[in-house]
Amino acid sequence: MDKKICDLSTPCFLVDLEKTKRNCEHMIRTCKELNLHLRPHTKTHKTIEAAILQTNGTKRCIAVSTLAEAEFYANNGFDDILLAYPVTEDKIKRCLALVKQLDKFQVMVSGKDGLQCLEDHISDLPKGKVWFVVIEVDLGYGRTGFPWDSDDLIKTAKAVSLATKMKLEQLYAHCGNSYAVKSIKERQDLQYENIARLRKLQAKLNIDCSIGVGSTPTCSLPLDDNKLLSEFHPGNYVFYDYMQHLIGSCTESSIACRVMTRVIAHKQEKNTILIDCGFMALGHDGKKERLPLLDFCLIQGESNLKLIEMAQEIGKIAAKEGELDCRLYPVGTILYIIPYHSCCTSALHAEYQVHVGDAVVETWKPVRGW
Amino acid sequence: MDKKICDLSTPCFLVDLEKTKRNCEHMIRTCKELNLHLRPHTKTHKTIEAAILQTNGTKRCIAVSTLAEAEFYANNGFDDILLAYPVTEDKIKRCLALVKQLDKFQVMVSGKDGLQCLEDHISDLPKGKVWFVVIEVDLGYGRTGFPWDSDDLIKTAKAVSLATKMKLEQLYAHCGNSYAVKSIKERQDLQYENIARLRKLQAKLNIDCSIGVGSTPTCSLPLDDNKLLSEFHPGNYVFYDYMQHLIGSCTESSIACRVMTRVIAHKQEKNTILIDCGFMALGHDGKKERLPLLDFCLIQGESNLKLIEMAQEIGKIAAKEGELDCRLYPVGTILYIIPYHSCCTSALHAEYQVHVGDAVVETWKPVRGW
Repeated sequence: MDKKICDLSTPCFLVDLEKTKRNCEHMIRTCKELNLHLRPHTKTHKTIEAAILQTNGTKRCIAVSTLAEAEFYANNGFDDILLAYPVTEDKIKRCLALVKQLDKFQVMVSGKDGLQCLEDHISDLPKGKVWFVVIEVDLGYGRTGFPWDSDDLIKTAKAVSLATKMKLEQLYAHCGNSYAVKSIKERQDLQYENIARLRKLQAKLNIDCSIGVGSTPTCSLPLDDNKLLSEFHPGNYVFYDYMQHLIGSCTESSIACRVMTRVIAHKQEKNTILIDCGFMALGHDGKKERLPLLDFCLIQGESNLKLIEMAQEIGKIAAKEGELDCRLYPVGTILYIIPYHSCCTSALHAEYQVHVGDAVVETWKPVRGW
Repeated sequence: MDKKICDLSTPCFLVDLEKTKRNCEHMIRTCKELNLHLRPHTKTHKTIEAAILQTNGTKRCIAVSTLAEAEFYANNGFDDILLAYPVTEDKIKRCLALVKQLDKFQVMVSGKDGLQCLEDHISDLPKGKVWFVVIEVDLGYGRTGFPWDSDDLIKTAKAVSLATKMKLEQLYAHCGNSYAVKSIKERQDLQYENIARLRKLQAKLNIDCSIGVGSTPTCSLPLDDNKLLSEFHPGNYVFYDYMQHLIGSCTESSIACRVMTRVIAHKQEKNTILIDCGFMALGHDGKKERLPLLDFCLIQGESNLKLIEMAQEIGKIAAKEGELDCRLYPVGTILYIIPYHSCCTSALHAEYQVHVGDAVVETWKPVRGW
């Protein structure tokens, strides 16, 4: 193909293929060095192509965030899929279909209801199949999962391991609290604590099962102690983003996705330029309290520019300091926006323009919906 | 069809057909009473079905926010389409194709560059066709458009009206500042000022063209003085949302869209329940400074519940006051979320489940992308 980035309509979602490959290879290497199993999460990109890179071509051993993802990957030759989402009655029929279709489909039990749901459908399991169960452990993040030190967790793990048609695969912790840390030290302390809690739990349980932890911040800067665990489940690292950069998971140059936009108008009297990237193309995610007001993206190579407002299809850019000379950014000028949260921004695009340098080499179509 | 709402997978985007019809009929009636032309904007829903309701079945006279929308409607029998977006060189080829395809395709000139762009492509116009030009006027909102009292506006309007292959159709003002008002009085004052400015401009110009104003807040509660204008371009009113309700454009019962979600887990020790609606299904838009912290939706009929956090696929609900008794919301309980900003939330869904009462009667598929 001869298509260049500059020929693309804007706004569009760009994926740098070489950077994506490097991010995937780096995580594979990290896990190898730590002697950890890698079960990459597909939620950030939701494409076949990136999942192939994440699994080093094996198409085996992934985690997904929705049933739609699970079905998409199952229908495209992937297997050993963990639906990393609390299993509930309303989603059980589709789970049973996946159990039938795949060699291994893992479901996640995050509370007593989840176990009850699986027990209620033991007789619906296809012949020769079992429920591969991952139990979600809450290490303090407080979203879903059994509190790590709760009796319910022990009881549930034992019940699963004793059930004839269930197999306890893993204790899984998302470690979402790793996103809230404010320093490297704080992150390390949290990681040590998480690992220690999981090991303590493992000892108390005394059941043979693996232990997995997710979250890109945790997996991007692992500790030696991570060797004591079994599996890593990171997802965002495929693309990374401004948020991961801010919390130290990656360098700016590792960020593999951008929104490409063009200047569409000026307001010299207001010291602003307008671009064809509004919240439909970038998303509002990023207005976190801990961030400076409206600091929800980087404008690549333009350290004095900031995006100060987004309407549906129009973004407003101003200078961080001093006056903005609009003549430096004529209408048609291309700008590249590094999103605050790539999981949020990618979801707004029905296709990704994949490039090597300036050449557009592929178009990836993610799965959407639930 | 026999499908009921409660049979739907969650999360999903629900559209109440009767409410949508009423909202559309009400706006048609409002315009009739004011003797105003209605050019409804399709940006909130982007579907054929809702645009038919907006145009009272004529499929004529709409405003759109993207080229993709313009092409979608043009390919589905609509005509007299205004691309309410600054025309720029990079989008001109597709504009020319629409000029050829439609009886009337209007483009918007928001600055001197826009006029230059049209002039540069006069010779590319299909035989017998002209540029139907709408000039965007900035009444103080400060986003795009010529400042209402600027010489450039006068010059541009005169240049268009004198050009042989251009026709000046309208002076258009978005009135986006109507979203920032804090009281009915403030809104009315703003509307009076906007109308007065447009009339002053019209008198100064002394050229035959219509005057149109957009924005759902302005058009939902019009003033008698609006009779002095020619066209209304509202969009959000089709569905309305929590934001419009907060600024007084509609009652809560007029809001025609909701996200349906189910309880998937509990955290009694944290006084929270978890739902299968995260930012992928609701969006983060709404974290506006003027709103109470995190007040970005309503949970229908549950006045003591608030959504306090959203991860990608999980939302966390707490009580506004007192403790939350999780037993009142067993896993599987259906909740309905009224989004803060329906334009943002609808964009996250590849289809809308359209219902009358409890019966799902249609599925609408919006156009996406640019």
